[in-house]
Amino acid sequence: MTPIDLRSDTVTKPTPAMREAMAQAPVGDDVYGEDPTVNALQEKAAALLGKSFALFVPSGTMANQLSVRVLTKPGDEVILDSRSHIVRYEQGAAAALSGVQLFTIPTERGLLAPEQVQAAIRPKDPHTLPTGLICLENTHNAGGGSIYSLTAIERIHTLARSQGIPMHLDGARLFNAVVATGISAAAYAQYFDTVSFCLSKGLGAPAGSLIVTNHEELSLRLRRYRRMYGGAMRQAGILAAAGLYALDHHIVRLKEDHDNAIRLARALRSLPAVKVDLGRTETNIVLFDVPQQSRPASEILGALREKGVLINAVGPTTYRAVTHLDVSADDIDRAAEVFSAVLAT
Amino acid sequence: MTPIDLRSDTVTKPTPAMREAMAQAPVGDDVYGEDPTVNALQEKAAALLGKSFALFVPSGTMANQLSVRVLTKPGDEVILDSRSHIVRYEQGAAAALSGVQLFTIPTERGLLAPEQVQAAIRPKDPHTLPTGLICLENTHNAGGGSIYSLTAIERIHTLARSQGIPMHLDGARLFNAVVATGISAAAYAQYFDTVSFCLSKGLGAPAGSLIVTNHEELSLRLRRYRRMYGGAMRQAGILAAAGLYALDHHIVRLKEDHDNAIRLARALRSLPAVKVDLGRTETNIVLFDVPQQSRPASEILGALREKGVLINAVGPTTYRAVTHLDVSADDIDRAAEVFSAVLAT
Amino acid sequence: MTPIDLRSDTVTKPTPAMREAMAQAPVGDDVYGEDPTVNALQEKAAALLGKSFALFVPSGTMANQLSVRVLTKPGDEVILDSRSHIVRYEQGAAAALSGVQLFTIPTERGLLAPEQVQAAIRPKDPHTLPTGLICLENTHNAGGGSIYSLTAIERIHTLARSQGIPMHLDGARLFNAVVATGISAAAYAQYFDTVSFCLSKGLGAPAGSLIVTNHEELSLRLRRYRRMYGGAMRQAGILAAAGLYALDHHIVRLKEDHDNAIRLARALRSLPAVKVDLGRTETNIVLFDVPQQSRPASEILGALREKGVLINAVGPTTYRAVTHLDVSADDIDRAAEVFSAVLAT
Amino acid sequence: MTPIDLRSDTVTKPTPAMREAMAQAPVGDDVYGEDPTVNALQEKAAALLGKSFALFVPSGTMANQLSVRVLTKPGDEVILDSRSHIVRYEQGAAAALSGVQLFTIPTERGLLAPEQVQAAIRPKDPHTLPTGLICLENTHNAGGGSIYSLTAIERIHTLARSQGIPMHLDGARLFNAVVATGISAAAYAQYFDTVSFCLSKGLGAPAGSLIVTNHEELSLRLRRYRRMYGGAMRQAGILAAAGLYALDHHIVRLKEDHDNAIRLARALRSLPAVKVDLGRTETNIVLFDVPQQSRPASEILGALREKGVLINAVGPTTYRAVTHLDVSADDIDRAAEVFSAVLAT
Repeated sequence: MTPIDLRSDTVTKPTPAMREAMAQAPVGDDVYGEDPTVNALQEKAAALLGKSFALFVPSGTMANQLSVRVLTKPGDEVILDSRSHIVRYEQGAAAALSGVQLFTIPTERGLLAPEQVQAAIRPKDPHTLPTGLICLENTHNAGGGSIYSLTAIERIHTLARSQGIPMHLDGARLFNAVVATGISAAAYAQYFDTVSFCLSKGLGAPAGSLIVTNHEELSLRLRRYRRMYGGAMRQAGILAAAGLYALDHHIVRLKEDHDNAIRLARALRSLPAVKVDLGRTETNIVLFDVPQQSRPASEILGALREKGVLINAVGPTTYRAVTHLDVSADDIDRAAEVFSAVLAT
Repeated sequence: MTPIDLRSDTVTKPTPAMREAMAQAPVGDDVYGEDPTVNALQEKAAALLGKSFALFVPSGTMANQLSVRVLTKPGDEVILDSRSHIVRYEQGAAAALSGVQLFTIPTERGLLAPEQVQAAIRPKDPHTLPTGLICLENTHNAGGGSIYSLTAIERIHTLARSQGIPMHLDGARLFNAVVATGISAAAYAQYFDTVSFCLSKGLGAPAGSLIVTNHEELSLRLRRYRRMYGGAMRQAGILAAAGLYALDHHIVRLKEDHDNAIRLARALRSLPAVKVDLGRTETNIVLFDVPQQSRPASEILGALREKGVLINAVGPTTYRAVTHLDVSADDIDRAAEVFSAVLAT
Repeated sequence: MTPIDLRSDTVTKPTPAMREAMAQAPVGDDVYGEDPTVNALQEKAAALLGKSFALFVPSGTMANQLSVRVLTKPGDEVILDSRSHIVRYEQGAAAALSGVQLFTIPTERGLLAPEQVQAAIRPKDPHTLPTGLICLENTHNAGGGSIYSLTAIERIHTLARSQGIPMHLDGARLFNAVVATGISAAAYAQYFDTVSFCLSKGLGAPAGSLIVTNHEELSLRLRRYRRMYGGAMRQAGILAAAGLYALDHHIVRLKEDHDNAIRLARALRSLPAVKVDLGRTETNIVLFDVPQQSRPASEILGALREKGVLINAVGPTTYRAVTHLDVSADDIDRAAEVFSAVLAT
Repeated sequence: MTPIDLRSDTVTKPTPAMREAMAQAPVGDDVYGEDPTVNALQEKAAALLGKSFALFVPSGTMANQLSVRVLTKPGDEVILDSRSHIVRYEQGAAAALSGVQLFTIPTERGLLAPEQVQAAIRPKDPHTLPTGLICLENTHNAGGGSIYSLTAIERIHTLARSQGIPMHLDGARLFNAVVATGISAAAYAQYFDTVSFCLSKGLGAPAGSLIVTNHEELSLRLRRYRRMYGGAMRQAGILAAAGLYALDHHIVRLKEDHDNAIRLARALRSLPAVKVDLGRTETNIVLFDVPQQSRPASEILGALREKGVLINAVGPTTYRAVTHLDVSADDIDRAAEVFSAVLAT
């Protein structure tokens, strides 16, 4: 039996219709700018985010890192939450490739408060390094799929603009925020110089991310650095076709993932051993705790896996389950039974 | 009418059979190592090159750059031909991302002589920087698809080993050398710590390259840096399926491209205005000169393009035509007529 | 009248005897290793810290940065207090030059607790970056000249060693800790792979710092990178002579600076507007607060300056005064009167 | 007996008068901009070179590297002679610290011809990296103290300006060119965005170099990066005093060094075993060849050293002797006898 894979929304497999879209996609050499499907995806992405330019890249990490690169100079400092994807899961690329220092702010749910940002901006003083960039992540993965309020973003933006500091949005899961709040992607994006978002997470495409911006000069430099980092592919239209399909068909359905997340959170809440905060299950990520667990996390993961449920541990007693395209409400109910069986013993 | 595109072998489009292979490919999350098609491609590539480990990456540039990175330290010097792909077409990545200095050696055809390498290796002297790597390119793009002799490689390798200097092979078009000489890919690869080769050039896949190595520690670091550079994709099996198909079906047929290159070179040689060296048309690249041309290269390219033939200029009076999967012998004959018409006037 | 300069212990001027030592110093070309005074200083420094090798460099920043460089690889993470000199006052060099990411831990007094270090060490997991280095600063400048207990250092060292993580000590003011505690420099240094200390702070030399280590391979690489960073000077013996003199004559007298710091702290405590913690005035730095101040810090600094006392603000209502060789007990009493006059109004 | 040290002009020791200048120099904390002697030196240097801003740094390497840094971006290409100091003796810093790729041009005497520069400038083509900087070295060390003609510099400058490419002059030995040609330092400097020159070579100061520029924004960034690289010293006036003295007293006398170089070259030319080109002995460096030498260079150096003459080998049969402040005409005559004795056998 296929396991119910709740480790991440990155595990989704392309649907038959998406595969068909890839199989039929007209392609060309994208390094020459001649891939019609890549071009169509980039235009659609730019329009959706309310920006003028978009660039297709192989991964969310590359989307973030190219953005960091074009918005900073080596020796700048970048303000961001201490559990950001850029901090934790990009192998130190911001320092190793762009030479920037990270000013990491501890937060409870991954969301920076404007006051925290204000306190973190370095004074204009030759003894200290300059603050070069502010990065937000929305929804915030390690924060449990948490959503920024537009007000908070706007206030941070006002601060940033008053000091001439650019802003990047890691919007790997931006459309989860869009679907959960009804706020448009463009409304979020308006406050940022660059926004990245992923086709391969909740949207269900096999790979690929986009960076959007309004600045032509940035877009040219993004394209140049995409070559430098090895992200320029030739007939990338095959992958772009899946992305186009995902933007057409897989945004609205994210609501199902959110519903399934709440469904799972409710089931988990009913287990005496488990602590889960329904109010914080805002999108497709369920964080929960088993405070008094009698065996190490690795054993619990193993026991779940044996019964056909895969999740990740994100702390000694903390776990993360992520809902997505390949998980149905029935799967959630089956998973809930497994959780019950494993966490009761 | 579709133009005859001789600009590069990167412009090939996936064949129906290759598209079918992609459409049917089983996939998984390759960041977890769970994509069966990627795994199969990596195993096949390693076996073909006689190495233990292989890693799939989005592009030839990333394959080269990750190899340079794992084999050097910042401040090392890398010896290579002055017109190498790494020097010209990778946006300064070796310096910008790996911090290495290039010791570029001018050569006529892109092929380093052992004596040149010997003279370039820095003495062990604290006043100078250390030589950290030697990179060869085979076949050599800017050298006109030129092929290294195994003897030259072996002699360079002997030098390198005596000084403890690792070697990388940019084998973007290694299989062109294999088909032209009958020497196996593994025979070439045995002298190198890392070898990269491309699926998206003569082999006709839409995108993707591989790095192979015998060293497990290097393979782990390559994997780590692939994440850092943004080259880790999720259901990469879609692209890998095209690569597997290419390795199965598109190696032997490279001979057709070589035959077509000679066919084109012969036709060009018959034009009085054109200088071309048949003996140097060893694989699928035809370099030719129009020494007395009466108009700038850009105009000649434009005139050819108008008549349906695309090529690139690689110097003020020098041109490059590349044969590939999407160019037939008939196309070559048609192109020859166009060259004749344009270069006679 | 010469102002009483309490901004930093970096402002000390060489004494006549120190100037005489410089004037008489035999010198040679240190890039060839032939400067006898540099060699003597390096030997003395190594012996004093109980290490085998020492290298003279122009500044504390270079001493720290070369240490970070030789102990890490780009993409590693470095654990350190969030207000460390390396974080705040080295212009982002750790990221910009060595490509390392900083894991900055907020602390009250600049001193990392072993538990904090333990929680910060990344798991051995291919998804995250590796912890490559732990840096401590002793005494801690921004922490108010605070001193690490040997027990805390030893516990952090035990943790680090169990995971194969090297340790660097920013000992810019290590001798202040030595004099305050009676613990020898070598006793502190034994836990670290590299230790830097400054001649130009409390020790009163015009410029120069040393890096010491027990590892010959590290010492050779430090020397190489000193050239790369531009820190190799020719007849550096002129400066080294001042350093030798400082090690001979200016260590024991640091006690006067500590006494003066306490003297100043006591005087400040007597002012109702001022909050100062005597117990935390461990060495030569006095941090104090003026919580209800009626005008901005810049105005208070200006008023003090007008009356001949220079200090720095380190927060909106927080100030730092540093005692040193050029400040006598009488100066402190005069300064105390000025503080009283300015902070009473 | 003290050996006659012709290895380099870096080996000079401060004269008694220079030591006196250092001993008397008023100093302050240069990190606060308060060292009067550093300020005086910087003003004098700027005036001498006809620029508005000057910055004192510990070494010629740092002067070059900070200049490269402020004039480029990572991934730019820098055009320079293949045996430049920046290429050979700065430990790969341009790549390792500034991330720039070097386009090295082989020349006979270290002097780039305008045609070579023109051919090396990359076309404005998104496939290639941008040319970001042109560096000249005058006089050229490895070229044998060779001097650029002002015409050549002007033509290169015209080319560079037409493409918006900045220029840096490594003028470590610029004053040797000034004295040899009668062309002022400002006349040379006018074509460059930044010029570095050394106090510690022919000028005889123990250490220190200056960078001059007309651009305030560059001067601020140079100052910032000086901190980042660890080149900000506190009471640097001690060293600056030697530099001021050198500028006042040691420029005109460089003519003696040039005369001594010719004197040595003439003596060497009289030896049948030696090849030396008098016409190419333009300043204080004598390159000569012993084509048929019967023993390796290391043995010849040893034999010379035994008889009290130190020089360096710069190739298997090529040697370099450098005249300077600490070498008199009598020393040259004595050295000539030693050469005669050693190279006759």
